[in-house]
Amino acid sequence: MPDTSSNQDLTLGVIGLGAMGFGTAASAVNAGIATHGFDLRAPVLADFEKAGGVPAESPAALAKACDAVLLMVVNDAQQEDVLFGEGGVADALAEGALVIGCVTVPPSYARDVAARIAERGLLYLDAPVSGGAVKAAAGELTVIASGSKEAFAAAEPVLDAVAEKVYRLGAEPGQASTMKMINQLLAGVHVATAMESMALAIKAGLDPETVYEVITHAAGNSWMFENRVPHVLENDYSPRSAVDIFVKDLGIVLKAGGELGMPLPMSAAAHQQYMAARGMGLARDDDASLIKVYQALSGFELPSGGGKKDG
Amino acid sequence: MPDTSSNQDLTLGVIGLGAMGFGTAASAVNAGIATHGFDLRAPVLADFEKAGGVPAESPAALAKACDAVLLMVVNDAQQEDVLFGEGGVADALAEGALVIGCVTVPPSYARDVAARIAERGLLYLDAPVSGGAVKAAAGELTVIASGSKEAFAAAEPVLDAVAEKVYRLGAEPGQASTMKMINQLLAGVHVATAMESMALAIKAGLDPETVYEVITHAAGNSWMFENRVPHVLENDYSPRSAVDIFVKDLGIVLKAGGELGMPLPMSAAAHQQYMAARGMGLARDDDASLIKVYQALSGFELPSGGGKKDG
Repeated sequence: MPDTSSNQDLTLGVIGLGAMGFGTAASAVNAGIATHGFDLRAPVLADFEKAGGVPAESPAALAKACDAVLLMVVNDAQQEDVLFGEGGVADALAEGALVIGCVTVPPSYARDVAARIAERGLLYLDAPVSGGAVKAAAGELTVIASGSKEAFAAAEPVLDAVAEKVYRLGAEPGQASTMKMINQLLAGVHVATAMESMALAIKAGLDPETVYEVITHAAGNSWMFENRVPHVLENDYSPRSAVDIFVKDLGIVLKAGGELGMPLPMSAAAHQQYMAARGMGLARDDDASLIKVYQALSGFELPSGGGKKDG
Repeated sequence: MPDTSSNQDLTLGVIGLGAMGFGTAASAVNAGIATHGFDLRAPVLADFEKAGGVPAESPAALAKACDAVLLMVVNDAQQEDVLFGEGGVADALAEGALVIGCVTVPPSYARDVAARIAERGLLYLDAPVSGGAVKAAAGELTVIASGSKEAFAAAEPVLDAVAEKVYRLGAEPGQASTMKMINQLLAGVHVATAMESMALAIKAGLDPETVYEVITHAAGNSWMFENRVPHVLENDYSPRSAVDIFVKDLGIVLKAGGELGMPLPMSAAAHQQYMAARGMGLARDDDASLIKVYQALSGFELPSGGGKKDG
């Protein structure tokens, strides 16, 4: 448990109260931090007030009330608008205030934002997160962070409240976003590969439950195989993490590869599979629905969710 | 420990005494099974005799002395030659004898072999293995097996001696080879992806040791990432598993995809990376040397093996 008495000095604002942002803001509230929140959706703001948070009328209004603003919006375009658009956070924050960027963005964008934030006399922590909505609500996120000593010091009570584990990568904003991008490269390719392997296994006549049992004890295993294949076995494609996330994040990977002059054939092949799933209308479905791309192209019966046929 | 007294009824022959076959044969010897061995390399046969095995002059001579023959040769072409070529095993075995096929072969080939073996009144167990040379020598292989009840019963003392874990997939030869192929699809793609991710991370300026630390605790992890990336960090490309293995095994995957009418873009992209490494002269090096394909195309410094520069 964090020492909540010391948290009362800090007023935190969280912008973007989706599944991740809401949980993060709620875990800050639970740690005794006065926490304001902003989201475009009025019902979400009402829920946040019920959870003990202070709803804000606008990003600028939130920024005026807060010492630190944590951004958990969808992508770099939203982050840019919230920070530097009309009525943005950057102009409304008091000098010396902290911006914590938790969005998965291109590393080059993280560096650029940090420089513009610094020009205004503000602090920036490049701090992408992972762990999902459940971990966010429990204050148990993994945060990958980089930034100045001053930014880390200012962020400490917030990180204590929302994170189980903080990787401190160094003093340069962008290092953390680069690490997050590397994780997303692996995760995105592994989901696509898990679905390719299950598609081939089913098409070749293997029992999918048996495949899961063997592979999760074998050298072919991955964190993503173990986590996502059960969605296929249970015939449950409700979005724990949607197809669109990896359309975006592998897009970030390929953009970085382009900037650095590095061909990335595995990432590119996986990105095309997510694009195909989106093309099939599956953008908002769970990313395990990539198996339906294989099904559409070669035809086989997916598990109906009832477990082993003869079990 | 297996009950060695019951193993004295069975005489086993092992053909192909490479790293995997030698260890497997030695673990049979250690379990009290009279074990003959054949390999084209005379020094290997001499070593096998020192380890307590009986060296054979030819596959046919071995087969005449044995009740069960375990095949651990390199590929389906060698297996075909050993079984059905001139002086092959199939003609030399007594009726009712057992052939255990441990080679990773196309599932369609496993079915075909099993049918021809059965025509001769012999038993066939489709039994690809995994675990590597160290596990083989310890009698701790993982065996994925399918075949008739009679084949499983005949193989039992051998499996007890050489395997820690046996997955019994069913009565049809080919089921086990299909499962092994699925594992190799995942494993092969994961190695290629691990190397792509490390290449991008290094090119983007991250410390490779830190990347390993973070990823092995994150959703981007895979068994292969965890196992192979240390070879890069230690600058040690001596072959624990060579590039050529996945040139072959992903070739099997793509062949099966072709037969089943299923496009496999992830497997195809990975196969090309192994082909590129082979093209660079790295066929016999550790498969972690796929990172050198990325290095050749985009330029960056690989770890020298001394650990953290500033550590």
